[in-house]
Amino acid sequence: MSDTTVPESGSRVVTAALLLIGNEILSGRTRDANLTYIATRCTELGIRLVEARVVADSEAAVVEAVNSLRARVDYLFTTGGIGPTHDDITADCVAKAVGRPLIEHPEARALLEAHYGDQINPARLRMARTPEGAELIENPVSTAPGFRTGNVYVLAGIPKIMQAMFESLAPDLVGGAPLLSRALEVDLPESVIAGVLTEAQAAFADAVDIGSYPFARGGGFGVSVVLRGTDGETLARSLATVAAGLRDLGGTVEERT
Amino acid sequence: MSDTTVPESGSRVVTAALLLIGNEILSGRTRDANLTYIATRCTELGIRLVEARVVADSEAAVVEAVNSLRARVDYLFTTGGIGPTHDDITADCVAKAVGRPLIEHPEARALLEAHYGDQINPARLRMARTPEGAELIENPVSTAPGFRTGNVYVLAGIPKIMQAMFESLAPDLVGGAPLLSRALEVDLPESVIAGVLTEAQAAFADAVDIGSYPFARGGGFGVSVVLRGTDGETLARSLATVAAGLRDLGGTVEERT
Repeated sequence: MSDTTVPESGSRVVTAALLLIGNEILSGRTRDANLTYIATRCTELGIRLVEARVVADSEAAVVEAVNSLRARVDYLFTTGGIGPTHDDITADCVAKAVGRPLIEHPEARALLEAHYGDQINPARLRMARTPEGAELIENPVSTAPGFRTGNVYVLAGIPKIMQAMFESLAPDLVGGAPLLSRALEVDLPESVIAGVLTEAQAAFADAVDIGSYPFARGGGFGVSVVLRGTDGETLARSLATVAAGLRDLGGTVEERT
Repeated sequence: MSDTTVPESGSRVVTAALLLIGNEILSGRTRDANLTYIATRCTELGIRLVEARVVADSEAAVVEAVNSLRARVDYLFTTGGIGPTHDDITADCVAKAVGRPLIEHPEARALLEAHYGDQINPARLRMARTPEGAELIENPVSTAPGFRTGNVYVLAGIPKIMQAMFESLAPDLVGGAPLLSRALEVDLPESVIAGVLTEAQAAFADAVDIGSYPFARGGGFGVSVVLRGTDGETLARSLATVAAGLRDLGGTVEERT
């Protein structure tokens, strides 16, 4: 896998996976905030997030997940495990997964030295380690950079820093045709509208993906129907079909923006 | 894999994995609330959650994830995809994964008929489908049950219903030695305390797991140090070692409860 592999733009589906690394998420101590952010931004960029995994701070688990996921997607993002302490093992694991030596990246070292001055120490220099040949990802919040090796993008776990890193690399991410989305709400239960949705899904087959999400709100129940596809006109026709079917069932239908 | 396989109680580590099924989480539309709940409850029950995955409403993705995860853990929990609509495919996928025919479960059908009366319809009856030989998991919120087949526990995606289902099966889950946890906060940066933590981790090796979580709060910065292990006395000694080391560095150390 070359370090310069990036997806071609165009109409094909561009995919991503996300690997969240950290015992604290799996113990319930920390509520992850990174999945929703990256999922939303990928959707906006025309990149389909096809899987997310949370694994522990365990070398075997991280190496296996990196190799399993990076082979299947255009972009693999990881979050967590790139700080200065003993439990920050992501750089080691990614280097092992991609089969490159772990080095002290000269640019990263220079950044950290400039930032910490005479407060530099071995723990802080741990944050300069990357697989050989990696490109740095800028961290405008706290300096210590992320990095990219091949199609693996290694980001911080702290949401504010992760988001800043993601935005500094976002202009280089190449999406496919953007996935458009429209949504309806109806005041009928899912089990009443299921037939209408099944028929509409069959009619629009691969062109539109119809999702059904029941909700309870202020004492009322209903369903959000979300339609997604890459062609706006087809999407509008599927929306009209679903809305007409729901009104035939006696539902009050509103488009949500 | 037998339907009656359950872990033996005792000192060995009992593990779980969680499979979250749903396009809406991967598109960023819905913020998952089930991971934190199940992670916290597993920790309380002495069960170590070793991995969580989020996959799309895609048969291939769900079947592969179920088979990959169920082989590696004592308990696999799934959430989502067991409602009445066309995109609810979890029962189909789990049946395929475990190699059993998908049937209409007689008890589940009876429950749904009693609940819906003459409002029963084909969509609602979809929620009676399970792999042959499955045991039902009670749903005290909205009747339509979850189910267990082998070590795979299939739960609803709506948090309130998922939680009720989890609690109805929790008394049957057998944990290992409970993982005890103690935590300190110190007003020093991670990169200053890293050496103390590395030494303490080495001294207590496999007996205690030391995690380091930087925080920013009300203008102040610091680190939460979380120590976890199954032996209370060893844990107390490791806590004292870390606290002494942090005080030697000039830190103010407080135990968090």
